[in-house]
Amino acid sequence: MLAWRNRFARAATVIHSPAKSLIKFCNSCGSPVRHRVPEGDTFMRAVCDACAHIQYENPKVVVGCLAVAGERILLCRRAIEPRYGLWTLPAGFMENEETAAEGAMREALEEARAKVHIEDLYTVFSVPHISQVHMMFRARLLNDDFGAGLESLEVKLVAADEIPWDQLAFTVVRRTLEHFLEDRKRGVFVPQFGEIRAPVR
Amino acid sequence: MLAWRNRFARAATVIHSPAKSLIKFCNSCGSPVRHRVPEGDTFMRAVCDACAHIQYENPKVVVGCLAVAGERILLCRRAIEPRYGLWTLPAGFMENEETAAEGAMREALEEARAKVHIEDLYTVFSVPHISQVHMMFRARLLNDDFGAGLESLEVKLVAADEIPWDQLAFTVVRRTLEHFLEDRKRGVFVPQFGEIRAPVR
Repeated sequence: MLAWRNRFARAATVIHSPAKSLIKFCNSCGSPVRHRVPEGDTFMRAVCDACAHIQYENPKVVVGCLAVAGERILLCRRAIEPRYGLWTLPAGFMENEETAAEGAMREALEEARAKVHIEDLYTVFSVPHISQVHMMFRARLLNDDFGAGLESLEVKLVAADEIPWDQLAFTVVRRTLEHFLEDRKRGVFVPQFGEIRAPVR
Repeated sequence: MLAWRNRFARAATVIHSPAKSLIKFCNSCGSPVRHRVPEGDTFMRAVCDACAHIQYENPKVVVGCLAVAGERILLCRRAIEPRYGLWTLPAGFMENEETAAEGAMREALEEARAKVHIEDLYTVFSVPHISQVHMMFRARLLNDDFGAGLESLEVKLVAADEIPWDQLAFTVVRRTLEHFLEDRKRGVFVPQFGEIRAPVR
């Protein structure tokens, strides 16, 4: 069971670390901000004393997909930091005005030039130490026409026994692949929800 | 199937509406920003030409719970806008440095003074026209000690036939309740993933 008592104690004090905020100026009027708990709030915010505007900082959503062609899984080798050169599932920050599934499709297209059919939401992991929520979809490649996008060194389809477990970029990727392979053995795909508290890699 | 072709076309043009951005100044150096597509990007961003800082705007996550005590469901009547006076499940914006489940517990405590045990992630809805993702958990009340928090006029446990369907605050709440009641009849709770494109209410 989750420890509501500890969480309440944290919320009652102050859960945010203003030291982690990079906000120095009001993005509405340009005046310097102060980091303080506004009246009626319980969290530290970047508050503008000049125009009263508050800049909220909230978790970001990362969307991606585990796309298959038959038995094989689409992996990308990263051409960007962090984790340059390591293998990942196509994924990236969800954008405004799109759905999570559209974001996952867009990332497959951008990173792997792959057109995919989204099957279902598959894993959802909170990663609180970096204030992210990762949502990975099961997907199916629509054709063989894929390749490295700008953010990938190479893209390939791998069988289960070809997955480079010691060269995976992120814990989310490893846990999603493990869960998928277990489910595939059982013949049933069950969405998994969880959290990743250790370092991401 | 999702229409990747249309989405690709949109991404290739520019998906964001800069008119919807309220960012006028750089929050790193205080200079005015311009809304433009940075080099290597495909989206409009608030870019600072003085210090090169980019302010990204991304979807926000709303976390909440459908908490039960036996057969009854915990509902809150909103004491704040939007939807003042209408009924909702306890929910609110996820905060940095917490997990989605912790956020759902926190909202139950803040809005309904309720201590809950989180069972599982239950519904996930993208709401693209307001750039939000709503994650609702199934939960269980830990005791009878609950009541209206600052953002609620009243909080109560209702049976299925007492749900005020015409007085619900949000589509997400209605669809989560409908899904829950159907699942409960079948005796199995299956996570649901979807999107809400119509007006939220």
